[in-house]
Amino acid sequence: MRVVLPEACQGFCFGVKRAIDEVTSISKTGEVQVLGHLVHNPQVVEQLERDGVHTVESPEQITSGIVAITAHGAPKEIYDGFPNIRVVDCTCPFVKRLQKRVAELSEEGYKVIIVGDSHHPEVVSVSSFAIEPIVVGNISQAMEIGFFKKIAVLSQTTQDTSLLRDIACELTGHTDLLLFENTICTSTRERQAQLLDLASRCKAVVVVGGRVSANTKRLYQLSKQKGAQTFWIEGPEELSCDMLARIKTVSGNGCVGLVSGASTPPSTVLQVFSILSSY
Amino acid sequence: MRVVLPEACQGFCFGVKRAIDEVTSISKTGEVQVLGHLVHNPQVVEQLERDGVHTVESPEQITSGIVAITAHGAPKEIYDGFPNIRVVDCTCPFVKRLQKRVAELSEEGYKVIIVGDSHHPEVVSVSSFAIEPIVVGNISQAMEIGFFKKIAVLSQTTQDTSLLRDIACELTGHTDLLLFENTICTSTRERQAQLLDLASRCKAVVVVGGRVSANTKRLYQLSKQKGAQTFWIEGPEELSCDMLARIKTVSGNGCVGLVSGASTPPSTVLQVFSILSSY
Repeated sequence: MRVVLPEACQGFCFGVKRAIDEVTSISKTGEVQVLGHLVHNPQVVEQLERDGVHTVESPEQITSGIVAITAHGAPKEIYDGFPNIRVVDCTCPFVKRLQKRVAELSEEGYKVIIVGDSHHPEVVSVSSFAIEPIVVGNISQAMEIGFFKKIAVLSQTTQDTSLLRDIACELTGHTDLLLFENTICTSTRERQAQLLDLASRCKAVVVVGGRVSANTKRLYQLSKQKGAQTFWIEGPEELSCDMLARIKTVSGNGCVGLVSGASTPPSTVLQVFSILSSY
Repeated sequence: MRVVLPEACQGFCFGVKRAIDEVTSISKTGEVQVLGHLVHNPQVVEQLERDGVHTVESPEQITSGIVAITAHGAPKEIYDGFPNIRVVDCTCPFVKRLQKRVAELSEEGYKVIIVGDSHHPEVVSVSSFAIEPIVVGNISQAMEIGFFKKIAVLSQTTQDTSLLRDIACELTGHTDLLLFENTICTSTRERQAQLLDLASRCKAVVVVGGRVSANTKRLYQLSKQKGAQTFWIEGPEELSCDMLARIKTVSGNGCVGLVSGASTPPSTVLQVFSILSSY
């Protein structure tokens, strides 16, 4: 099959790569605990485990001399550290900028509205830097918001631009002063743009990424919304003969689009590319 | 006929009343020239003429010792004055605040977008305080705007809120940082809200106001959009027997809604109210 794999979709984004490199480097000096999954990809987390980087679910479980904060960030108090524990901050710089910005805007008297998935670690982290922020994940939730003198609406860095814009539009009716900041990161924007292009050109699109990766899920949803038949896999091992045959049937004589989430290893993407291309 | 005349719709708004009172008071000390119509109501302008307040169309025509700036404001340079001429500033305080705000936002690097009627004196005035602002009057014009790093969208004080919000929504796609300020004045909002209420309750609505008054025109349009049969008159002299009969037929056994533009004298509104009520 003829596979189209845009450069912007070939694996780790900047923030994820940076976090993995940092943690891998530190693990050479001793055992590292990570508060939550460093990135939302099970293969990556398993590899890190083999390298001595262990995932813990809550601060109470931290016992090691080194704790790493994930690429998604952590609640504000975690950054202040623990007794006798070295904290290594692997928060994505785009998330850090967002944390700083919501803190500033709260201080300036804005009611901060964060467009995002309320349980996602990035949103939990960013929210902890604002004064009583409101997290909204859809238009219905935005419509329930009351009237505030000043509203600032910002976004989880991996959100969908059209949802962010729709929510900002709704909120123009809830205030006389609305500050709208599109804080979706460049990597997310590029991937989404490439995905939309692929989904309009290819009848079949393969999305590679972790099942719990929110940004991967959005790529999958966008592709389906655009009308392409979309296959979501975590890695090459899921490419069964049956699935390969279906992808070939759907694509007909056309190309197959291939994209990956921001936490998918480039090697995984290239393996999938190789299998699809040689089928 | 049973006529409903909400208190907020009974004549001059705050800014118009203030301008007329000021000019009338000054006219007692000598001839006054006004640059443009002090307010957009011919009856008011005629009355002022009788009181020694004369309208001139351009700064070159100013010869008197006193010149008044209208409620809508004037281009920036006019405020700086003329040799041997006393300038009396009758600009509505809400317009002055808007002038100040667009100047500040321009200084802060925002591309200022003013939602309004490009030839309206208020918009001409406010625009002159911003650095290369863009005036947009409808969604199509907003869609033609390019991408700017920072956009501030503000409104002519007498605009329609739904148009302002629609344009702000469109502009969320033209920047990563949008500041939306709803600068529509309280008086305009109250009149529009009352008008919408009347148009939903009454089959017939009478709008009283100058033909060149933009805020009156918007009340007329909103009423028609809401489905009420709407009659736009400048004053009681336009209430012909034929029109009165038509209003009665349309209203049936229901009430007739009555509203006025912001530059309509209260006495004119009350005369109309009296004629309609006694028909």
